[in-house]
Amino acid sequence: MEISQYLPFWTKLTGSQQEQILNVTEIRNVKKGIRIHDSSEECLGLVILKQGQLRAYILSEDGREITIGRLFDYDVSLLSASCVMPDLQFNIMIEAEKDTQFWSIPACLFKNLVEESLAMSNYARSLISNNLSDLMWLMEQIMWKSFDKRLAAFLLEEAAIEGTTELKITHEKIAAHMGTAREVVTRMLRYFQNEGMVRLTRGTIEIIDEAKMEQLNA
Amino acid sequence: MEISQYLPFWTKLTGSQQEQILNVTEIRNVKKGIRIHDSSEECLGLVILKQGQLRAYILSEDGREITIGRLFDYDVSLLSASCVMPDLQFNIMIEAEKDTQFWSIPACLFKNLVEESLAMSNYARSLISNNLSDLMWLMEQIMWKSFDKRLAAFLLEEAAIEGTTELKITHEKIAAHMGTAREVVTRMLRYFQNEGMVRLTRGTIEIIDEAKMEQLNA
Repeated sequence: MEISQYLPFWTKLTGSQQEQILNVTEIRNVKKGIRIHDSSEECLGLVILKQGQLRAYILSEDGREITIGRLFDYDVSLLSASCVMPDLQFNIMIEAEKDTQFWSIPACLFKNLVEESLAMSNYARSLISNNLSDLMWLMEQIMWKSFDKRLAAFLLEEAAIEGTTELKITHEKIAAHMGTAREVVTRMLRYFQNEGMVRLTRGTIEIIDEAKMEQLNA
Repeated sequence: MEISQYLPFWTKLTGSQQEQILNVTEIRNVKKGIRIHDSSEECLGLVILKQGQLRAYILSEDGREITIGRLFDYDVSLLSASCVMPDLQFNIMIEAEKDTQFWSIPACLFKNLVEESLAMSNYARSLISNNLSDLMWLMEQIMWKSFDKRLAAFLLEEAAIEGTTELKITHEKIAAHMGTAREVVTRMLRYFQNEGMVRLTRGTIEIIDEAKMEQLNA
């Protein structure tokens, strides 16, 4: 796959803009455990994950961490572009959780393009909006967690009923069961996946760490 | 002041876009204590505060609150536009903390303009980026800053907002702002009183040693 296939705004760029991106964008390989971005190091710009897994987190002065989000194959992130986006003022760390291959569109080029291309500006806005939604969600979890327990209980019950840990059920259906919105279920399931409790594939939720889930539910 | 003076992108809009905004934007007056936005009510779109004070907060299922941000004169916010911005998925409440006058650019018009005007798209991105930075900061506060520092910072901020060191605010209300229980606030305030930083009387918290409080917050 080429970089253009990862970027939904690609066909709306001019030929010259596309060329600029192709000329300066580099693909990079990092080993598991390597920190690819922090507040003091280089500014990565827009990161496009080809293969592997990245984790974005914030770090307290005394070394405590909290995961803000994760990037899997095909994910795109602007979190590492705060250096050129004056309104993004926070110090975030990004590290590779697996051996990872990613492209980065350099920060300065990205900044220029966002200011001249409506399609790119809208795309950047959408990325940041998603970050904001995720963070709002995480904050609610931290402050008041309750839905995670309900969902864990529901999945464990389903597994018991069906006699299998491989649940064939849509997020829509779970939402209907629990009286909430599909998006809420999807976001929580992704969180469960990040935590290694489930594996999500098309139409299936596989419970891979029942004990951890039961603990959550306790 | 006219609405155009509050919107930095105004001169970059076409005449027709300006006219659309002027035709449908209404000015509204709300009394202190009124909730102007929640997830079930109308969608406000872009809110431009002319005069007064608004508070945005999230609410848990069991009624606990935490303040996400405040709007003062001339502030502009997109937090109440989540209804038309599919990537902004969260339930936020907005209430008037003082008698307030504000404009709102209706959600549907705003959505259309953002998708056709580069200046507006960049402006919306900047607003959301600011929200993300604020929320990241708040998350760090909640996760890692001890409660005494957070409370000191809150009281100093209130004093700055109100222009007085004699704060008329209940412990209940402070607890709601900070996402904690009233008892926790009361206990810490008594400690502050013992340390000579505040004087507590019925319904009032008087800051009597601002310097010491600022030191605590440093």
